[in-house]
Amino acid sequence: MTDSILNNNKENGDGSVSIVPLGGLGEFGLNMMVYETEDDLIVIDTGFMLPGSDMPGVDLIFPDIRYLVERQEKIRGILLTHGHEDHIGALAYILRQLDVPVYGTQLTLAIARGRLREYGVLGKAQLNTIAPGDTVELGDFTAEFIHVAHSIPDSVAIALQTPIGVIVHTGDFKFDMTPVDGKLTDIQRLARLGAEGVLMLISDSTNAERPGQIPSEQSIYSPIDGIFQNTEQRLFLSTFSSSLHRIQQFIDLANKHRRLIAVTGRSLINNVRTASELGYLNVNPDYLIDARDASMFQPHEVMILSTGSQGEPRSALTLLAFDNHPFLNVEPGDTVVISARIIPGNEKAIGHVVNHLLKRGAKIYHERNANVHVSGHGASEDLKLMINLLRPKFFIPMHGEYQNLVRHAELAESVGVPKENINIAEDGELIYLTADSCEVLGREGRSGRVFVDGKPEFELEDIVLRDRIQLSEDGIVVPIIVLHSDTGANPDAAEGLSSAAPSHTALNTGEIEIISRGFVYMDESEKLIEKAKEVTRDVIAKMSDEQKHETETVQDGVRGALRRFFSKQMQRTPLIFPVVMRV
Amino acid sequence: MTDSILNNNKENGDGSVSIVPLGGLGEFGLNMMVYETEDDLIVIDTGFMLPGSDMPGVDLIFPDIRYLVERQEKIRGILLTHGHEDHIGALAYILRQLDVPVYGTQLTLAIARGRLREYGVLGKAQLNTIAPGDTVELGDFTAEFIHVAHSIPDSVAIALQTPIGVIVHTGDFKFDMTPVDGKLTDIQRLARLGAEGVLMLISDSTNAERPGQIPSEQSIYSPIDGIFQNTEQRLFLSTFSSSLHRIQQFIDLANKHRRLIAVTGRSLINNVRTASELGYLNVNPDYLIDARDASMFQPHEVMILSTGSQGEPRSALTLLAFDNHPFLNVEPGDTVVISARIIPGNEKAIGHVVNHLLKRGAKIYHERNANVHVSGHGASEDLKLMINLLRPKFFIPMHGEYQNLVRHAELAESVGVPKENINIAEDGELIYLTADSCEVLGREGRSGRVFVDGKPEFELEDIVLRDRIQLSEDGIVVPIIVLHSDTGANPDAAEGLSSAAPSHTALNTGEIEIISRGFVYMDESEKLIEKAKEVTRDVIAKMSDEQKHETETVQDGVRGALRRFFSKQMQRTPLIFPVVMRV
Repeated sequence: MTDSILNNNKENGDGSVSIVPLGGLGEFGLNMMVYETEDDLIVIDTGFMLPGSDMPGVDLIFPDIRYLVERQEKIRGILLTHGHEDHIGALAYILRQLDVPVYGTQLTLAIARGRLREYGVLGKAQLNTIAPGDTVELGDFTAEFIHVAHSIPDSVAIALQTPIGVIVHTGDFKFDMTPVDGKLTDIQRLARLGAEGVLMLISDSTNAERPGQIPSEQSIYSPIDGIFQNTEQRLFLSTFSSSLHRIQQFIDLANKHRRLIAVTGRSLINNVRTASELGYLNVNPDYLIDARDASMFQPHEVMILSTGSQGEPRSALTLLAFDNHPFLNVEPGDTVVISARIIPGNEKAIGHVVNHLLKRGAKIYHERNANVHVSGHGASEDLKLMINLLRPKFFIPMHGEYQNLVRHAELAESVGVPKENINIAEDGELIYLTADSCEVLGREGRSGRVFVDGKPEFELEDIVLRDRIQLSEDGIVVPIIVLHSDTGANPDAAEGLSSAAPSHTALNTGEIEIISRGFVYMDESEKLIEKAKEVTRDVIAKMSDEQKHETETVQDGVRGALRRFFSKQMQRTPLIFPVVMRV
Repeated sequence: MTDSILNNNKENGDGSVSIVPLGGLGEFGLNMMVYETEDDLIVIDTGFMLPGSDMPGVDLIFPDIRYLVERQEKIRGILLTHGHEDHIGALAYILRQLDVPVYGTQLTLAIARGRLREYGVLGKAQLNTIAPGDTVELGDFTAEFIHVAHSIPDSVAIALQTPIGVIVHTGDFKFDMTPVDGKLTDIQRLARLGAEGVLMLISDSTNAERPGQIPSEQSIYSPIDGIFQNTEQRLFLSTFSSSLHRIQQFIDLANKHRRLIAVTGRSLINNVRTASELGYLNVNPDYLIDARDASMFQPHEVMILSTGSQGEPRSALTLLAFDNHPFLNVEPGDTVVISARIIPGNEKAIGHVVNHLLKRGAKIYHERNANVHVSGHGASEDLKLMINLLRPKFFIPMHGEYQNLVRHAELAESVGVPKENINIAEDGELIYLTADSCEVLGREGRSGRVFVDGKPEFELEDIVLRDRIQLSEDGIVVPIIVLHSDTGANPDAAEGLSSAAPSHTALNTGEIEIISRGFVYMDESEKLIEKAKEVTRDVIAKMSDEQKHETETVQDGVRGALRRFFSKQMQRTPLIFPVVMRV
């Protein structure tokens, strides 16, 4: 039965809706949700994820979209909630494979365009600009876009009218009673939806574990104003390049304190330009200077906006910390404000940058020692308010690891959603929703992740990733075995076998050579390698002529013998990759 | 001048003291400090450090002790402040190279003995048990051991009487007005030392960035008591195996709530046994059961103490989370308390364990959602109290990254230590102290780190580590080139060249083969590999006969051509390791 739902959605014939999270339920990032009836399918958000340090050599992670490719004829559109990469970063990757219309607000699409251009799909992309309050009909679904406050302007929640009732998908949101751009989360509309009846709420769990309320974005204005007042030299401010409300406040403070504004870092320069052109940033161009000219002014006359709040290796702030920036530098007495969340996993990199800025004599402010950052995601009380406004019959938490989803489910229960109407689902599960029931059905290979290294056309197989992890643990050993092609025996010891260091191995006919990388320092491990050659020679000598003729048998034998040898001698398990040559 | 101080300490002839941090100033862990006069040298602490994820395949990091080996005739002793691994973990490694007496409290030495036995140096180790209040003469130094409260019992600070005055080295400490074992940080003695005059204070900076005071260890008793009261099924408690005050409170609560105690995890079993035998844990053996027998009792009759508070892969709690524990399991309705700090860098691993425990239906408490942990390191106000008690002339912050040291220096200034008498030093720098001056001299290769993979005799060279990092980023490519030994030309295309998958490569004479691991999935990259072979063939074809005879020239040419090819085609830079064979 599950299968038939998956494969042809016959079960949706009664007007039911299938909801399939392709990412973001069970992890942070990769946000992508499918809503599907018998005839129509829409997608909300197309996010990517940045890999952790347990995935060496992976640059990006995209959701696996085979589920969509198989259903492309019924896809009526991709709806974007806002312009953060964990919600739009996979759009270009997806539009390479699918020709479907995209709906998003002006700023969201402006940010998406950059990457679409880069990936060469901007020309064919069908981008439809919507505004909060707009309604779009997409087959069985009517999508209504509702403004929400978040750390990036022009963010929306989406209310989906479906044949069985209204589903509200919040996207990322907070309740900010004094937003920087004056645009509230549309609590009026949400309350009216709640009064009219909401069948299901699917809501952001990012901060479900945080008690209380998230303060207004404006709450950082006064602390940073104080920093401006106490800074007599240069002032560097770093935040995410998409945090435009934050950047607006920095600009307002620069105006107040009569500092000119220089911007460094590519993404920040692009976003400031785009957002100013579209009116999302209010900046007097007379006060903007080229960062190259910053040194022409007195230190107290300049504020520098910089990328690098997460300690990214090639970012402007990192270059400044290590005095590698092409035309700016941090001097003793300067002040640096890192106005962003310290994302778990980045603590070491950020700490490294902070340590080096301190060594340059700068004064540093960050979220751990000053009120210079506030989250864009509602905390427990905000999440309860959202549920109380909408009063949904069914509830599903999204955006977060399992523990965040569990906590959000507890919050929903605490404000009166019946426990049996709350479900925790994870990527690839199918949420089968009717007017009076909600059931979570098992995974059927619907979801997955695509690992990308370098260009997006170079997807990595799991096996390559596993090899990399093993390579990074203990390196690789390549025994090269030369056998007579007729006898299968080891030829006589070679004349003129190269005695050069293994990095310059040259083999003549005969003999066994062992090369390695990332395993041991060969110059100091001659004995070990000699012993390993002996082990290799011994295991081959014990083989019958028939066995010696089977390349795989020789390889398996050598691999096993060396694996045991290195494990016993050194408690290490390098990748062992025997090459058999026949002469 | 710096050099002569380093090399023969002539400059200490006037009774001055040189202080050399060999670890722990500029990082967390690796704590080790040298105090040295013209004739005598003592070492305080011998810690190790666990590697970050940026050091693949490294198991442990030890301080480089060449500075000590060169001076072994003047070493009068190693003094240990307490039994945590970041203070004693390198002792066995050091005693393999140096025969020197060791001084520590009963519990500290009991914990150290385990590893000394494991490393085969227990027999020759000269272990001297001291008690708080004791004084030991070590040449020019007289060391007085002063009790301090910390997360492990039997911790001491050390006051060193030297020819020029008293130096106080705090070790790790907190001020706990109601310690679990009733033993206060000896504020009386510290105050008296302050009254008599302290030349220099060297103090723990771990929590310098935390405002306020660290609460008493007993502050977690009541919240965990509440968890006991609300738990009807099994209760799992996880903490560091050395956190004996914490474990004592768990045991007391188990007694109060009539639960038997089962212990799982090797280090915890060892420490509970050792500490009970020595009287540091008060546990009624009648209430201890073998974890194997836990299932014989009702869920509410058992408390299980478990290792794994940091999500360590093979720890008991991780095995429980993934239902791999040999004889225990977590059932829906069970409760798990992780009563430990979530150490930065371990968040992902701990989150993984928490997610899976939640999926098993357990209720989880940890420091982020309940008051189940309190630090063993004093925060800002505690650090100020230590400085005010001792009123030192000079001040050096230790134990922490640069940012923590800077913050601690600011705290010292805020309570009246003259700014010019406060110095920030880092590993390997030499702190040159006289009765009325303190100067920090540059690094001269005095300090360093030793990376250990597997057994401690397998130290890793930097180059091996760098190779591993590159291997993990993009894998390895091994082109195998077979040339005629006389002509240097490519032989004719080989008969019978194996067409097997690259993992089963067999080469006959002639041809070029390319094998790789961790680079691309070979089965799907045939075209790419064919093109790479062409590139290889082309670069060799363009070489003169003379060049072809030079193995290194062939290798360099092939490496360069393939590097450019892969970089341009795929933006990747695998390790390229050409093997040249001559037939």
